[in-house]
Amino acid sequence: MEKIPILKMGQFLLVTIQVDLYDRLALNLESDLVQMVSTTEARGVLIDISAVSIVDSFMGRIIGNIASMSKIMDAVTVVVGMQPAVAITLIELGLPLSGVHTALNVEKGMELLKNKILVNGEVPDYDDDEQYDNLDGTE
Amino acid sequence: MEKIPILKMGQFLLVTIQVDLYDRLALNLESDLVQMVSTTEARGVLIDISAVSIVDSFMGRIIGNIASMSKIMDAVTVVVGMQPAVAITLIELGLPLSGVHTALNVEKGMELLKNKILVNGEVPDYDDDEQYDNLDGTE
Repeated sequence: MEKIPILKMGQFLLVTIQVDLYDRLALNLESDLVQMVSTTEARGVLIDISAVSIVDSFMGRIIGNIASMSKIMDAVTVVVGMQPAVAITLIELGLPLSGVHTALNVEKGMELLKNKILVNGEVPDYDDDEQYDNLDGTE
Repeated sequence: MEKIPILKMGQFLLVTIQVDLYDRLALNLESDLVQMVSTTEARGVLIDISAVSIVDSFMGRIIGNIASMSKIMDAVTVVVGMQPAVAITLIELGLPLSGVHTALNVEKGMELLKNKILVNGEVPDYDDDEQYDNLDGTE
């Protein structure tokens, strides 16, 4: 099983990361996701990392990449389920995940996506998400 | 990462199986899921096996177990995303997954669950699911 499944749920795509993202798997995930955003016309991508207990700079970069790619494809990325230890590590590694929306769990992430996309009818900038948990900390 | 994450989405729980279910992991999944059904009062469990390309009798049994346990806890289990090869193998192994609802993908599975639970207001028997893809084939 060398592929991370991407689940389509309405206008959103859901990815659950359960295994270590080594090079090939991460690159496959990136390309699969962009492909899937294109074919399904998804407006949002939810990445659940609740099973991830150890994070390194590579993984941080991959998540940032996915968010940037999705943004170009007109989809919003929300990372959900981050463990406290992972948040600590990311900040200590100097990876504040700026530009990535975060939420505590899938339900809250879904709500955030709906607020950002369905209600407004457009994808707002990455700056106006103070009401949700994020790691950015720049405001 | 020795835990399969269980995502709560409204009244349903979503589990994506991406790794081989060896003994300990499968037992943990069973107990976590039952615990989660109890704490979240979930009415349905969606198990996505789209990443599973090889299936054995152990895995077939685990899925059956989860469905039976959920049923006792008053939740309906739907298995989604089964690959054609997996369906072939299950039947050849003599495991028709009777008592387990199946659907082609998460969206259809979610719809099936909603039909079974939200509209009717109660969980109907396992017998009246002819309108959906299932592997039962007994009707």
